[in-house]
Amino acid sequence: MAAVAAAMRWRLLQVISVAVLGASGTPQPPNILLLLMDDMGWGDLGVYGEPSRETPNLDRMAAEGMLFPNFYTANPLCSPSRAALLTGRLPIRNGFYTTNGQARNAYTPQEVVGGIPDTELLLPELLKGAGYVSKIVGKWHLGHRPRFHPLKHGFDEWFGSPNCHFGPYDNRARPNIPVYRDWEMVGRFYEEFPINHKTGEANLTQIYLQEALDFIKRQQAAQRPFFLYWAIDATHAPVYASKPFLGTSQRGRYGDAVREIDDSVGKILNLLQDLRIVENTFVFFTSDNGAALISAPKEGGSNGPFLCGKQTTFEGGMREPAIAWWPGRIPAGQVSHQLGSIMDLFTTSLSLAGLEPPSDRVIDGLDLLPAMLQGQLMERPIFYYRGNTLMAVTLGQYKAHFWTWTNSWEEFRQGVDFCPGQNVSGVTTHTQEEHTKLPLIFHLGRDPGERYPLSFASTEYLNVLDRITPVVQQHQEALVPGQPQLNVCNQAVMNWAPPGCEKLGKCLTPPESVPEKCSWPH
Amino acid sequence: MAAVAAAMRWRLLQVISVAVLGASGTPQPPNILLLLMDDMGWGDLGVYGEPSRETPNLDRMAAEGMLFPNFYTANPLCSPSRAALLTGRLPIRNGFYTTNGQARNAYTPQEVVGGIPDTELLLPELLKGAGYVSKIVGKWHLGHRPRFHPLKHGFDEWFGSPNCHFGPYDNRARPNIPVYRDWEMVGRFYEEFPINHKTGEANLTQIYLQEALDFIKRQQAAQRPFFLYWAIDATHAPVYASKPFLGTSQRGRYGDAVREIDDSVGKILNLLQDLRIVENTFVFFTSDNGAALISAPKEGGSNGPFLCGKQTTFEGGMREPAIAWWPGRIPAGQVSHQLGSIMDLFTTSLSLAGLEPPSDRVIDGLDLLPAMLQGQLMERPIFYYRGNTLMAVTLGQYKAHFWTWTNSWEEFRQGVDFCPGQNVSGVTTHTQEEHTKLPLIFHLGRDPGERYPLSFASTEYLNVLDRITPVVQQHQEALVPGQPQLNVCNQAVMNWAPPGCEKLGKCLTPPESVPEKCSWPH
Repeated sequence: MAAVAAAMRWRLLQVISVAVLGASGTPQPPNILLLLMDDMGWGDLGVYGEPSRETPNLDRMAAEGMLFPNFYTANPLCSPSRAALLTGRLPIRNGFYTTNGQARNAYTPQEVVGGIPDTELLLPELLKGAGYVSKIVGKWHLGHRPRFHPLKHGFDEWFGSPNCHFGPYDNRARPNIPVYRDWEMVGRFYEEFPINHKTGEANLTQIYLQEALDFIKRQQAAQRPFFLYWAIDATHAPVYASKPFLGTSQRGRYGDAVREIDDSVGKILNLLQDLRIVENTFVFFTSDNGAALISAPKEGGSNGPFLCGKQTTFEGGMREPAIAWWPGRIPAGQVSHQLGSIMDLFTTSLSLAGLEPPSDRVIDGLDLLPAMLQGQLMERPIFYYRGNTLMAVTLGQYKAHFWTWTNSWEEFRQGVDFCPGQNVSGVTTHTQEEHTKLPLIFHLGRDPGERYPLSFASTEYLNVLDRITPVVQQHQEALVPGQPQLNVCNQAVMNWAPPGCEKLGKCLTPPESVPEKCSWPH
Repeated sequence: MAAVAAAMRWRLLQVISVAVLGASGTPQPPNILLLLMDDMGWGDLGVYGEPSRETPNLDRMAAEGMLFPNFYTANPLCSPSRAALLTGRLPIRNGFYTTNGQARNAYTPQEVVGGIPDTELLLPELLKGAGYVSKIVGKWHLGHRPRFHPLKHGFDEWFGSPNCHFGPYDNRARPNIPVYRDWEMVGRFYEEFPINHKTGEANLTQIYLQEALDFIKRQQAAQRPFFLYWAIDATHAPVYASKPFLGTSQRGRYGDAVREIDDSVGKILNLLQDLRIVENTFVFFTSDNGAALISAPKEGGSNGPFLCGKQTTFEGGMREPAIAWWPGRIPAGQVSHQLGSIMDLFTTSLSLAGLEPPSDRVIDGLDLLPAMLQGQLMERPIFYYRGNTLMAVTLGQYKAHFWTWTNSWEEFRQGVDFCPGQNVSGVTTHTQEEHTKLPLIFHLGRDPGERYPLSFASTEYLNVLDRITPVVQQHQEALVPGQPQLNVCNQAVMNWAPPGCEKLGKCLTPPESVPEKCSWPH
């Protein structure tokens, strides 16, 4: 039904608007620009209450667009969240999870063997059907082995890295992460693409900005609709900024990175304005998961009033800053209380392109255009998973936790704290606590910080449970989990000799292949 | 020096602007409207990141005015905070504190004997010198015995109550709180002025709104400059709202109260616009202390990302929402990082009136006009007191705690929690911990939530300590504490028979006079 509505919508847009004509003289669907941040928290933007208010461009974007204060990622960790965005499907469906332990967060470090299955249909693959040219700038994170390469999954161009910019390494135990231009490595982090671990200086955001600006200009000149997935990573530890921004923030190095990103977003929006394509370009800004409080305050952001951070299924782990911007189409200065999901960006983008989502599989993303263009509100659940475990669900204003866990006592005692300064008794637990029979239920409007569970005996609790139970039952009964992709690790699959390494003289020799179960501690 | 600058400023304003002419044909200083909320938290406004974003009028006020994200009250409790606002002086100077225990918060319940000393000069008294007519609408809270009556301290009109709207009582152990019009009681809360404790329904905000609108219209008609102190209390527990607002908020009853206040502020600003006096009316919105988390979620607000709430000297207890609005004078859509204090409203108001603050006493308030009109930043300390104890100081981005305390273990174990869901080890202590030799220092830019004290051994710590120490030393050496006014309580002084009670047949008989030490548990 969502798909039909989407197609209707684009036809409606074509009718009601002065259609932009492409090179062929036919009406051209809008360009799509997804700005995906890395570990940026809900509370990191001025418009979301960050006290230093150092994001004038993003705040302006919100003033000219629509803010979604209730927007969620699909997982509190980067790889599954990105896989969900590009497939419109929960990680439990698209395989971006592990069964090596219960409720374990997993991602794609270098030693992981898996990645995005060929059977998954990614947004850029589908957008090709409407003539889009697609580029990914920045972090891919859906697998780094050749079969997972983004250009094999629908993107036409790539500048960026397959994994996190962890390091620096000595290229012995593990290689430095490669940076690709399209099919080939053009260097490695900490080598050709330096990141000064001590000072935090790196030019990468500027490079990623330039890549974005160049791509937009080229596509505009060619009059082809484009999809740009700008997945930059300056706010993921090790946090970095370029020299002109270093030391300029009141928030330290993390704030420097945010300021550079804010400035870059401003430049991208300005280019769209200069090129006079704002009315034909849909822009959405969000983040892949909550701020990594474990790295705060130097290299981690803020989740505002919400509980805990990255790695957890509390609001701080999964509620994201989100702004939609499309001057002339999306009304300015609006706030939508639609429960949104990163997976909606898949379905919404298809809708913008006049395409229907695949009908041969379950798609979790909704088309948000009715919310954006007409202020509609659709009831829909938000599911919070850790690995293979449904931890919580939000429906309307109510969130029910079926399992609570932050991390193990063992990790916590070693100083790994996903909820620094926060502690809600019986909620931020260090043992996996099951509440499937009697979930802990919070009203997120009255209690966004998840501090006061409803009384089990209250009428409100019982009413909510009655509403939530069938939604969860239906979800779980219909669920066919995908083959888990993040179970097997192998030192031999790391980025020893990516394509193009010969030209650079940068090929390393992999060790013997020893597949083993990946270890996911939390 | 601040006083001289202030006088200069108003003369400058007179020169650079088309002066508004009063009835006498002489230039008229701007009207002053201070909107003081009760227990409203920093995080309660959309513009400060409240997720439900239900304050469109206040958000508009910020968009048309100047936001002060670093604005502080002078005390984490209502009476001393209000005394500080109206005298421009710290409670330790103006007597609004107790010495009955160390670091105890004290206020003016009915049984307190003291109140604002006659020797203190209040803002409305001083504004008379520039021809202002002054009105207080709402909660006075500077003492309820006849000598403390607001009309004896400079106000020309009053509609409101001398104490908090606690109750309902049976008028035996204690009388219900009177509501005054000017000199006389016109009824009591829960009697002539009902507050339905069960439903939360009360018409009071509407009455206070009407009082404000009427006063503004009358003064505008009379062409007299006015000072309106709108000290409403709907967000203080028991929280209330009128019928049209009850049940309308996503945040429950507390949100209903906020929505009604937001709506009322919109109506006040609209009236100024309709009367075409915006360019001659300075409006400032703030709150008396942080949100009372002890009453959350039903009857308490949000302090956003800050630590703890009302009663504490952590940021959640003393950092306040603050918006200055003066279209045509204060530039629109600005954010000032000036450290501001509620006491600055005293000095700034005098400056607006072209008056100098009293020179025979220490005034803690600064003139904020240079910050508001020219974007200047002045370095100044913010002192955080509990009773007679200097708990902390903020200078620039750094905050040093000399004492930490939330409340006693005894109270805490009984469920009195000023920091629900929050716990920073060694910081949110339940014993009074002294750190005067080696204060706990936080960088509020990187760490607004006061979670990560700087390492004692770091260069940064030592440098900050070097800067803060002389400021504190100078403050403490020069400090002459006022006579403490909140030490003695007596059941006989309660509101048994306020002036006007005979006309209403509402006089009660006081018990025998038994003065005793007031008990201040935290």
